[in-house]
Amino acid sequence: MITKKQVIEGLEMVLVPGVMRSVVKMNLVRNVNIADGKIDIALASAALAPGTQDWLKEKIKDATGKLAGVSEVSVSFVDGKPKDLNEIDNVIAVMSGKGGVGKSLVASLAAVAFTRCGYEVGILDADITGPSIPKMFGIVDRPGGSDTGMLPVTSRLGIEIMSINLLLPSEDDAVIWRGPLIGRAITQFWEEVLWGKLDYLVVDLPPGTADAPLIVMQSLPISGVLIVFTPQDLTAMVVRKAINMARQMGKPILGVVENMSYLYIPEIDKKVELFGKSRGNEMAKAAHAPLLGQLPIDPELAKLCDEGNIERYDSEIMNQLVESLSQVLIPHEVGKHD
Amino acid sequence: MITKKQVIEGLEMVLVPGVMRSVVKMNLVRNVNIADGKIDIALASAALAPGTQDWLKEKIKDATGKLAGVSEVSVSFVDGKPKDLNEIDNVIAVMSGKGGVGKSLVASLAAVAFTRCGYEVGILDADITGPSIPKMFGIVDRPGGSDTGMLPVTSRLGIEIMSINLLLPSEDDAVIWRGPLIGRAITQFWEEVLWGKLDYLVVDLPPGTADAPLIVMQSLPISGVLIVFTPQDLTAMVVRKAINMARQMGKPILGVVENMSYLYIPEIDKKVELFGKSRGNEMAKAAHAPLLGQLPIDPELAKLCDEGNIERYDSEIMNQLVESLSQVLIPHEVGKHD
Repeated sequence: MITKKQVIEGLEMVLVPGVMRSVVKMNLVRNVNIADGKIDIALASAALAPGTQDWLKEKIKDATGKLAGVSEVSVSFVDGKPKDLNEIDNVIAVMSGKGGVGKSLVASLAAVAFTRCGYEVGILDADITGPSIPKMFGIVDRPGGSDTGMLPVTSRLGIEIMSINLLLPSEDDAVIWRGPLIGRAITQFWEEVLWGKLDYLVVDLPPGTADAPLIVMQSLPISGVLIVFTPQDLTAMVVRKAINMARQMGKPILGVVENMSYLYIPEIDKKVELFGKSRGNEMAKAAHAPLLGQLPIDPELAKLCDEGNIERYDSEIMNQLVESLSQVLIPHEVGKHD
Repeated sequence: MITKKQVIEGLEMVLVPGVMRSVVKMNLVRNVNIADGKIDIALASAALAPGTQDWLKEKIKDATGKLAGVSEVSVSFVDGKPKDLNEIDNVIAVMSGKGGVGKSLVASLAAVAFTRCGYEVGILDADITGPSIPKMFGIVDRPGGSDTGMLPVTSRLGIEIMSINLLLPSEDDAVIWRGPLIGRAITQFWEEVLWGKLDYLVVDLPPGTADAPLIVMQSLPISGVLIVFTPQDLTAMVVRKAINMARQMGKPILGVVENMSYLYIPEIDKKVELFGKSRGNEMAKAAHAPLLGQLPIDPELAKLCDEGNIERYDSEIMNQLVESLSQVLIPHEVGKHD
């Protein structure tokens, strides 16, 4: 006898084009009915263009029709909005207040770290005027979608990504928008993108404490905030503003990460604190949160980011970040969404 | 016989408290009338608290009353708004699109460079959520003012500065404002601050291409834009957005400045391009503007910034910046406002 489990296993082989995650992980499967060798599958049509729907229908028939005892497979589409289909367990906002301290770097490394732990991960690039995420991951594909929503684009490691830069005619185009429009773009990325089932959605915030961070903190169910800073006193002051904002908005700070902490010069085997003495403990204390890592200035990492290969970064530093993140983050069952 | 020139010379000795520039340079002197040894001076009351008005009245009587042949001095105050009194010859916006590349550093160094050339200079810190200027100049004084306007605070070298951070109860306080409020703060800094007579007003823009840069470009008579970038490819992409914005808004780009261009390691006598190969020529080409300078990563400079001593920075690099700025900037008569 055909079981629902068998059908779902078959559906897990059917990937949504562009996203490259299964219709199950994208939470598109709304109903499976099995009776006398006949399988009826209902799929949400959210964010799926008509061509994609036809394509998925065929693939689903192929994947489930070959199960022993199946005489017929019918696939129907039902209405559904991305925001009703998304099941995102933890939303982590990466913020700093100050620009250029490495928010996007830390957001990306955190996403890679979660992925390496076996979690399903997405990145929402909330930096509308200075989006860095697609470049770091080497993503140039345009997101798919329909009039009911957009699909994210998936990185080599399987991280779902949505960024305004994937939607612009040219990556150099300036987005000269006022706050309300920027806010609308961010809420669209939250409500109208089909993220499906995710363990972690990392939100990369722009600098400042104005519209974008405000909208993210007010409109998204933030589980926790990661604060990024560099050792410069000047940076520390602006970062303390961000810490105060997170506190005022009642968002728990999960930890702080120091970037550009030092430079290791192999020729003289010396660590040089280029931007001043580490402020790790000071900032951890200000944030009432643990220091999760101290990233050096690493020309190799800068190169990987420029080449779109951040996912290849492998170092003792990265291992430490994975380790410390796993300790501070909301405990979560690996493979739950499989 | 008493001449008007003598009276003005006397008034040039009378400094506005807090600003430490003369009532002449602040353009407060509206009328000087001399008849039969009697001098009548009319001063605008803009941004002057009643106590300050009384204080200035006394100082003006002291300074002019001792001129040979003066029998009587009377000082009256007339209404006047800062925006009607300000005479600012060149407004230079420093922008980048990307955060943390050194906009505030370049804005500050440019202001110092202009000052060393003998010009009268101010800095309008348009980065409302991440203001860095006061810290770099070591300024903690609160601006004076009245219900008709605010007075800037003056640095050790005599640069007038206005920043939101001078107005906050604590420098760590977050300014959690949406775009319209941020825009209002910037236009207030332009219209309601008594800058007086200046050769150059340097506007330090926040990252991005949203509300703040938009408002500055739309509301302030920008003479030209300086673009700041770093060698990273990631930065270059976002900076090209800013270049495109300046172009779309019809603002001439005066030049580009590369920051964090390299690190000189004295132990091995080597310049290391930490963030990748210089993009000086590439960005100059993209901006259709000259490359004005390439600033190294300089721990000494980072330290001066953290200590509030940026005005003490003295190096070959700084001399080159002064030289190249003087070539590209709008020709201007030194000492015109004396």
